[in-house]
Amino acid sequence: MNEPESGEAPATAAVLVIGDEILSGRTQDTNTRYIATYLAQTGVDLREVRVVPDAEDEIVAAVNALRARYDYVFTTGGIGPTHDDITADAIGKAFGVPVGEDPRALSMLRERFSEEELNPARRRMARIPEGAELIRNALSRAPGFWIGNVIVMAGVPAIMQSMMDTVGPRLRAGAPVLVETIEAGSIPEGGYAMRLEAIAKAHAGVSIGSYPNFTGQGVRNQIVLRSRDAGALALAAEAVRALLADLAAAL
Amino acid sequence: MNEPESGEAPATAAVLVIGDEILSGRTQDTNTRYIATYLAQTGVDLREVRVVPDAEDEIVAAVNALRARYDYVFTTGGIGPTHDDITADAIGKAFGVPVGEDPRALSMLRERFSEEELNPARRRMARIPEGAELIRNALSRAPGFWIGNVIVMAGVPAIMQSMMDTVGPRLRAGAPVLVETIEAGSIPEGGYAMRLEAIAKAHAGVSIGSYPNFTGQGVRNQIVLRSRDAGALALAAEAVRALLADLAAAL
Repeated sequence: MNEPESGEAPATAAVLVIGDEILSGRTQDTNTRYIATYLAQTGVDLREVRVVPDAEDEIVAAVNALRARYDYVFTTGGIGPTHDDITADAIGKAFGVPVGEDPRALSMLRERFSEEELNPARRRMARIPEGAELIRNALSRAPGFWIGNVIVMAGVPAIMQSMMDTVGPRLRAGAPVLVETIEAGSIPEGGYAMRLEAIAKAHAGVSIGSYPNFTGQGVRNQIVLRSRDAGALALAAEAVRALLADLAAAL
Repeated sequence: MNEPESGEAPATAAVLVIGDEILSGRTQDTNTRYIATYLAQTGVDLREVRVVPDAEDEIVAAVNALRARYDYVFTTGGIGPTHDDITADAIGKAFGVPVGEDPRALSMLRERFSEEELNPARRRMARIPEGAELIRNALSRAPGFWIGNVIVMAGVPAIMQSMMDTVGPRLRAGAPVLVETIEAGSIPEGGYAMRLEAIAKAHAGVSIGSYPNFTGQGVRNQIVLRSRDAGALALAAEAVRALLADLAAAL
């Protein structure tokens, strides 16, 4: 991965999920979590996610809002051969560039399809906004693309993941965010919240979250600490463990 | 549920997920799909989803953008007792109203906590923006709230679901969206895309999507038809089935 310049702020990113199937409840989106985890490991800060329908105006507005604000925008969905796949045209519109059949994309499709199979619907998958770079897709050949700071990927998780593997090494990597998860067990959040806040305030550069999990066996809480600074993280984690030990002893 | 007036446009909605844990990849969000499914059955159109971090400015901006645009905004997350729970204050700021300890919320908390247990952290869960109506929470007592067109719910799925059950019957219900899912099996998308587009164009009022699923056994496709008009849906489904039968016979 590209090395960050020393002291450079981490790159920021947004995910834009394009798909009626998510908004209707038909499909559980799992791409966001995959990309989120990938970016955390790469040291890129995911700051926002949006889900919009398969509607050109909505896609254009979201792409333009997000690309102005973040270093990278990762879109998923809408680049297949059917009439509901309108992402390429929407991205072209967002960038104000024409969208035409790309000879490089066409030759990728020819790795999979015979001339007879390469009907107009499948050829739509070779429609790419002018100036975009292609992202190879080892699984089904139809490429994603990268234009400006927008990275356009498939919605099918296996294909999206293969595209992320192509794209990932070229992102501006930063120090990865280190994570420490501490089990608070059945100690209730309300029992440690005040002292946890004091720890959070005393450890700048460490983000501390508390996450209850209501199980059949009652509530189990986790405290999650996140930081790019290993030393600061260790100190904060030590303070949280001491707090929990103290509270457990008092139970 | 409230009956829609005849001919009235369906109510629209957005979901706003508030949570660093989603953006970091720690947690798989499942609340969006639950709410999406609930709203589809209620006949409310979910039009957009956003995920923002536990950062006041981001929450305020998203709430104000979404509440201006949709009939309902459902938020999840950030109403617990810990320092990272800042949703109530952010909502107060978005509406420009003060946030104070609400006696009704406090008495709900007293159903669960003794006076000794009701420490300042837990009392934070009684902080409610002025003018909001409370949403009971049978599970852990700490209420959600409803202010203007914004419905503020917990992030813990079981609690959020219990809050949706309270809120749901009071939404402006519309004709539910009827769904028909047709298995295209191994017939490739590119093989039916053009004729499917013709069917989509010929059946106004029916939204037709095609969803590939790459399994270990190769690609399996589904065609999903959605409409509020049962008759139109049946006609379009019949056309899709005839198309697939025709293609299967040609294989």
